[in-house]
Amino acid sequence: MGFFGFLIGRRLANREGQARKITALEGLPAMGLDGLSSSAYGPEAALSVLIPLGAAGLGEIRPIMLAILLLLLTLFVSYWQTIAAYPSNAGSYTVAKENLGANAGALAATALMIDYVLNVAVGISAGIGALTSALPALHRYTLLLCLAVLALITIVNLRGTMEAGIAFSGPVYLFIASFGGLLLFGVAKAIAAGGSPQPVSAPPPLAAAETGATLWLLLRAFASGCTAMTGIEAVSNGIGAFRDPTTKHAHRTLSAIVLILAVLLAAIAYLAPAFRVAAMDQTRPGYQTVLSQIAAAVVGRGSFYLIAIASLLAVLCLSANTSFVAFPRLCRVVAHDGYLPRSFAIPGRRLVYSVGVLWLTITAGVLLTVFGGITDRLIPLFAVGAFLAFMLSQLGMAVHWYRQHGHPIRLAINAAGALVTAGALAVILSAKFVEGAWITVFVIPCVLALLRATKRHYDTIDCLLREEGPIDLRGSKPPIVVIPIERWDRLAEKAIRCGLLLSREVAAIHLTRLEGPDAEEHEGRLRRQWYEEVERPARAAGLPPPQLILSPSPYRSFLGRLLKHVAETEARHPDRPIAVVIRADQGALVGPSAAQLARAAAARDAAAPWWSESRRRYGAVVP
Amino acid sequence: MGFFGFLIGRRLANREGQARKITALEGLPAMGLDGLSSSAYGPEAALSVLIPLGAAGLGEIRPIMLAILLLLLTLFVSYWQTIAAYPSNAGSYTVAKENLGANAGALAATALMIDYVLNVAVGISAGIGALTSALPALHRYTLLLCLAVLALITIVNLRGTMEAGIAFSGPVYLFIASFGGLLLFGVAKAIAAGGSPQPVSAPPPLAAAETGATLWLLLRAFASGCTAMTGIEAVSNGIGAFRDPTTKHAHRTLSAIVLILAVLLAAIAYLAPAFRVAAMDQTRPGYQTVLSQIAAAVVGRGSFYLIAIASLLAVLCLSANTSFVAFPRLCRVVAHDGYLPRSFAIPGRRLVYSVGVLWLTITAGVLLTVFGGITDRLIPLFAVGAFLAFMLSQLGMAVHWYRQHGHPIRLAINAAGALVTAGALAVILSAKFVEGAWITVFVIPCVLALLRATKRHYDTIDCLLREEGPIDLRGSKPPIVVIPIERWDRLAEKAIRCGLLLSREVAAIHLTRLEGPDAEEHEGRLRRQWYEEVERPARAAGLPPPQLILSPSPYRSFLGRLLKHVAETEARHPDRPIAVVIRADQGALVGPSAAQLARAAAARDAAAPWWSESRRRYGAVVP
Repeated sequence: MGFFGFLIGRRLANREGQARKITALEGLPAMGLDGLSSSAYGPEAALSVLIPLGAAGLGEIRPIMLAILLLLLTLFVSYWQTIAAYPSNAGSYTVAKENLGANAGALAATALMIDYVLNVAVGISAGIGALTSALPALHRYTLLLCLAVLALITIVNLRGTMEAGIAFSGPVYLFIASFGGLLLFGVAKAIAAGGSPQPVSAPPPLAAAETGATLWLLLRAFASGCTAMTGIEAVSNGIGAFRDPTTKHAHRTLSAIVLILAVLLAAIAYLAPAFRVAAMDQTRPGYQTVLSQIAAAVVGRGSFYLIAIASLLAVLCLSANTSFVAFPRLCRVVAHDGYLPRSFAIPGRRLVYSVGVLWLTITAGVLLTVFGGITDRLIPLFAVGAFLAFMLSQLGMAVHWYRQHGHPIRLAINAAGALVTAGALAVILSAKFVEGAWITVFVIPCVLALLRATKRHYDTIDCLLREEGPIDLRGSKPPIVVIPIERWDRLAEKAIRCGLLLSREVAAIHLTRLEGPDAEEHEGRLRRQWYEEVERPARAAGLPPPQLILSPSPYRSFLGRLLKHVAETEARHPDRPIAVVIRADQGALVGPSAAQLARAAAARDAAAPWWSESRRRYGAVVP
Repeated sequence: MGFFGFLIGRRLANREGQARKITALEGLPAMGLDGLSSSAYGPEAALSVLIPLGAAGLGEIRPIMLAILLLLLTLFVSYWQTIAAYPSNAGSYTVAKENLGANAGALAATALMIDYVLNVAVGISAGIGALTSALPALHRYTLLLCLAVLALITIVNLRGTMEAGIAFSGPVYLFIASFGGLLLFGVAKAIAAGGSPQPVSAPPPLAAAETGATLWLLLRAFASGCTAMTGIEAVSNGIGAFRDPTTKHAHRTLSAIVLILAVLLAAIAYLAPAFRVAAMDQTRPGYQTVLSQIAAAVVGRGSFYLIAIASLLAVLCLSANTSFVAFPRLCRVVAHDGYLPRSFAIPGRRLVYSVGVLWLTITAGVLLTVFGGITDRLIPLFAVGAFLAFMLSQLGMAVHWYRQHGHPIRLAINAAGALVTAGALAVILSAKFVEGAWITVFVIPCVLALLRATKRHYDTIDCLLREEGPIDLRGSKPPIVVIPIERWDRLAEKAIRCGLLLSREVAAIHLTRLEGPDAEEHEGRLRRQWYEEVERPARAAGLPPPQLILSPSPYRSFLGRLLKHVAETEARHPDRPIAVVIRADQGALVGPSAAQLARAAAARDAAAPWWSESRRRYGAVVP
């Protein structure tokens, strides 16, 4: 089995596929990591925007969070319906493609793919950033730690989505239990104290107000808080990972993630003003996150605080896992339609789409390495893709219900969802455009163009290869066989025998001076051998003797000279196919592989499409 | 032509080979850079060993340098004779191989190849080190500068040895003129002043003696000084670069290099005690090289001093060029004998052995990158290989003259040379063993083993491929043809038509479930198409209908399942060859290349040698 087998596990058979599928129990950790960890940075992001309002900002967080929760509810209902309507894949790509057309589908896929890649880089670096700010001694190993987490998540996901669900269930359930418990305990305490509880460990005093609330500021706070829901889409895209009935398990997983996220968000929105906890300026010394302040205020900085914060750190570091579940499955559907290379659609040895997993690892790894593990600058790029996909998905579902008639409530929900997500997207874009969102706006059309070029490529091939009618067996003349040989040896003998099976017209071509001006040539010897060992025996056996052509290659080019000879032969015999016999292995000094030969032949006919008619001439037989 | 053509130049024809050859005018800069730059560090290295002797050490440098000059003279006479005796390639490899046997030749080649690689890394980093210590602002770009110089030398040498000679003649001739002039002027001044001239800019005072002279110390100083002659071998190895008559041009180049080097060394050895210049401790502040001190003492720190030091810096940085001329040509001869892959023996587009050039660049580049451009630690590894090769070459020539009889003086010279170089090698090894020479001693056998394994590999193939007797045309039965198909399309049609040319027994194999448990299969459709489009037309044309086999691949392995089918077919028909028809391009979802197929087939028969009889079964035809 070897090291690779030890790392990834044994090869799984197709019939084991169903047993590898997951339920909500593994689905919640596997797909929910991003959504749950969002509870840490969503409210924080919203409160950060409110910092200039000082104490007054705390009064705004509850209505803002209420709006976010309403949007979350809309998305939840919408995705619930989508999963029911498209039980095999309910991602934005499918919904947009089915209802808004192929281009909208490709756009949704592009936006989501970019977002998933960013999510991995940003998620890991944010988690490791939180870890190293807790343990500054680790700071110099930032990039190494990021890459280690990336490698860990990759390996676990290459083993299987079920394994990922099981492996990461520990931190996830510990986080839910400890932080959920802590927040609910805090809420109970606050209610008991009439809404103004006494903090165990007091948060730092609030800053003075610098400015008054404006609509634009509140909208920006709302848009920033919306980053909390970027992980919601994953269940719809990862629907193929669920056991039958997929709809039931997907519904359960989605409900669990949204319910827990909503409870956490609501509790935080309630507790922050209650304990007078605001966001702090990250660049100032003594910085603490909102959640850390709330936890300290509720239970003090004891061991329970430490457990809760540790589980939060683990969830943050592992939040990239959601992308690893959803991205390969999205790519699979997209590749199935020809927008990505087909290898994205092939299950690997563990029945996950390994190419997608590895592609995600490589792109995220490059991002992490280029930015040295500090991807702060990528955060504004983030969420644009998710909300673009949300909007397309909502719009698609609205069209879906409109076309089906008789579902006015569903239509209304999705239409409202489309409007709100479009609004959120507009706010996100305008708020973050200069800071970096323009990069996403620039990258999306580029990736989209790539996807469409791939699709065109496959369409062209399909069109060229489509077979109409029965096989054409009339008048297939035996080919003229051309065999490049290096010298007279057993390989050459096999090639000639093989050529004689194909046709009675066989020519061996020996390219001289391939080895440069200083090489010794043995032309005479080869001619003698050819006469003795080939021509004479062939005549004796009553076969037309194979010809030997010695052709100098003054520029030491093998392929060019060979193709020129083939073209000349073809010009002399336009009605005959030409077969070139070559070796299977590439150990020879001058032997091209079949693929090289085909590529060179295609390149020569530059005017023709890549699957040119001219390529048909080059049959190649490996003896 | 493109960027590559712009960088390297147009492709040269074989007939242009002679016009690209060089004379001594280009040979001196191209091959002499290492030798001439040695004058900078050879005396310095010897004087460094003498530091503990204080002022008394200066008294020892003249006799030590005299011994080195005598050794240089021996090597010169010896290589002169070698070039005359072996006018096509006079390197240690050829001489040792011809006179001491193939193993001694391979050992000499190994030692030299390692030395050439080290020379590139050490030469460039020493040059850039000297540059950055003159201009400390450049220090942070050390690695970048090293790699830039490496890239420059690589590109120039890929363009051609002649281009390298022309490009680098500027710095070389400037160095010879300025430094040679400076030193001779100093000698004249010193003689005029009766041996104790007044320095223009006085060198720092000499350190106090810490210890007395011992034989071991003097031997170490001698061994360190010997590093000055590592570049001497290059002319013999690069002999193929010279114009006809090669011997004449090689002799001239060798003479010029040795003469200039000897003059420089002698002048330095005379001037150091005259101006009371000693080596300084590199780790102390205010460090200056011996040459810088001498130059300052002779002409003061004026503009002439600056020109001389700048030309010295340029020569140091470019000293790696000698390796770039000699290494590829050494590899070419070695590859010609089968000890290296044959690609080392093929001239590239500019008629230089590009593979050798690039290989040297890559290995030296890796060394430079790993050591961050500071290869001080590699210096002790250096010179071991060169002196091992010197010794083998001297020994080989001694045997050569002994066998020819009647050359007692030549025999004596080479025998003495062998003794002295062996002694120098022993001293170098013992003096530097702990500091790092043990690594060379460890690496040489490893590389040697690799060379011999390559040779065995080629010998095995040659032995297996050797053709005895005429082509065997009796009883070649038509093969059973196996054609993997993905679906019924024009590619499949071409493959079947091609298969029907080969044999009347054609089977198409379609592997189902390749795309995993969730893929839809269209078996029924394929069977219907096969019946309609293939079987019926074939029967109508009077041909035996090609068979369609649907074979499930439960583990999604294409090659494994295909080879299993081939093995089963073979077991049923042990007397028939089997041909597998595959596609030339690899664009298909599941199409292996011919090479992959051959490799997999070879790997399956693990017990057989790599060119196993079993491989003969797998013919592959690309339609």
